[in-house]
Amino acid sequence: MSSKIKAAIVGYGNLGKGVQKALAQNPDFELAAVFTRRQPEQMNSEAAGLRFEHVSAAEQYKGSIDVMIMCGGSATDLPEQTPVFARMFNTVDSFDTHANIPGFFGTVDAAAKQGGHLSVISTGWDPGLFSLNRLLAGAILPEGKDYTFWGKGVSQGHSDAIRRVPGVKAGVQYTVPVQSVIDRIRSGETPELSTREKHLRQCFVVAEEGADQDRIREAIVTMPNYFSDYDTTVTFITEEQLRSEHAGMPHGGFVIRSGTTGEGTKQIVEFGLKLESNPEFTASVLVAYARAAYRLSKEGATGAKTVFDIPLGYLSPKSPEELRRELL
Amino acid sequence: MSSKIKAAIVGYGNLGKGVQKALAQNPDFELAAVFTRRQPEQMNSEAAGLRFEHVSAAEQYKGSIDVMIMCGGSATDLPEQTPVFARMFNTVDSFDTHANIPGFFGTVDAAAKQGGHLSVISTGWDPGLFSLNRLLAGAILPEGKDYTFWGKGVSQGHSDAIRRVPGVKAGVQYTVPVQSVIDRIRSGETPELSTREKHLRQCFVVAEEGADQDRIREAIVTMPNYFSDYDTTVTFITEEQLRSEHAGMPHGGFVIRSGTTGEGTKQIVEFGLKLESNPEFTASVLVAYARAAYRLSKEGATGAKTVFDIPLGYLSPKSPEELRRELL
Repeated sequence: MSSKIKAAIVGYGNLGKGVQKALAQNPDFELAAVFTRRQPEQMNSEAAGLRFEHVSAAEQYKGSIDVMIMCGGSATDLPEQTPVFARMFNTVDSFDTHANIPGFFGTVDAAAKQGGHLSVISTGWDPGLFSLNRLLAGAILPEGKDYTFWGKGVSQGHSDAIRRVPGVKAGVQYTVPVQSVIDRIRSGETPELSTREKHLRQCFVVAEEGADQDRIREAIVTMPNYFSDYDTTVTFITEEQLRSEHAGMPHGGFVIRSGTTGEGTKQIVEFGLKLESNPEFTASVLVAYARAAYRLSKEGATGAKTVFDIPLGYLSPKSPEELRRELL
Repeated sequence: MSSKIKAAIVGYGNLGKGVQKALAQNPDFELAAVFTRRQPEQMNSEAAGLRFEHVSAAEQYKGSIDVMIMCGGSATDLPEQTPVFARMFNTVDSFDTHANIPGFFGTVDAAAKQGGHLSVISTGWDPGLFSLNRLLAGAILPEGKDYTFWGKGVSQGHSDAIRRVPGVKAGVQYTVPVQSVIDRIRSGETPELSTREKHLRQCFVVAEEGADQDRIREAIVTMPNYFSDYDTTVTFITEEQLRSEHAGMPHGGFVIRSGTTGEGTKQIVEFGLKLESNPEFTASVLVAYARAAYRLSKEGATGAKTVFDIPLGYLSPKSPEELRRELL
């Protein structure tokens, strides 16, 4: 009863470091090892007190790790790693390529069932908590309209796009929801919104010395797929400003359902996040679902699960009795 | 597969009428009967198209109703009715006397298990959706502080208290959250708040002819337990105003968790409701959980469950595949 849940981290980037911090806030967990594709010897000397292992050594840990927290990226890491690990361990990941979730679910489900393990896929906040709230509000208010806004937050893809523009040395892009539109929805309106009406894009750019700023600005705001459908602002800053004012990874957003019951009675359900660190928050969601994965597995459940399949009580270290007494 | 879920309503007040409307929005349900303690013959002539039965006739429906939606009050109706019905049917209710939930759970659990049925207790929005969000945010952010605000909404207990003051003919009381405090919490502060700082109480009062308004005002604002710990306003209105401007039953509120991850990184999770009709919304939550009760029972589950025990996927008429494809 008193033994801790033995968790391991796979991938030691921003998300993996966030999981390390989140595990330290949850005394029912212990961090058994960190698996990396880099040289574990070098890592061991960098981060004292952690046990680093090469990913290829994972098989030796079969039976001694309760849950693997997968911290790779959705583009190439997770599609490759989660099915391999799911055959050997319980896993939890934050796979977030929406269009590929059904296929990913099928692959991981088969792998986890083959190994007799349980895998929670696509946790985090979107997909994850936002998905839960879309389901919940939609089930309660079948007649209504959903709105999702993201931000204010850094978009990695758009920041990368800025940095590819000739003459740009460095830069960061914030997705910003349009406050006036959110206010209209909160007051009961259900507008049809174009892409441009929902979000602004703010770019902070460090130009190379002597670069033509007007040309850079024009190249950014007219860029198809990334910026041309949005109202985009470009602000030129120094490298010091970039370091001192734009080093954080804030994010957040809102899921709002505006529905009606009876004869046109307005009912509005809203869920929102305001995050100073996107990776640290996502990591905290992963850890809560790692607890659920471990518990479900102990009860004999196998295969892939999503946030839709798991009673929320499994996320909390408290007993059902405590939850009913303290939180219901 | 294509047959509908046969639901019945027990208690035909505001909540029961709300359930009738909610069922009409959910084509996978049919309303089989309404059970009432009044004379069903009289009801049948009042509300055409509904089948009314006296509560004492419920036993004759054993085996032909999939789920009973209990719409009585928490003070005396539900403690008596839910255990009786849980022995014969699957049930769902909105029992909301926080302090008595553990005892109620035990009684209903035993009754439901005895009959081989499933009972979802204490759904609605608080307890219910607010509880879910307290659990979720607390499990993700173990270091943090919870805030719950209610309103703007009508409090039945406080409205009743006003009406007991000598010289008062009629009246309604709104609980109003203090916006400036909510703004401080949303901006990252975690203040310790007294009762007075969180909510205002607004009273709209119809005085009897010739009554002393100053004395009424004084009697209200100094009333212990109800008003003396709050900043309370009393506005005298006419009976026409009461009817035309205060007939609705709006409510809502916010659950906010302000937490930290890593080294003091702020993370804020917020869930909010803005409801034009409290009973119609609560009814819609009951219907979504009635679907879950029916499904869980079909899978063989018995006993009492709360919102903490039920995967959210069970609330939606969509299949797991549809949910993953459309909402994750």
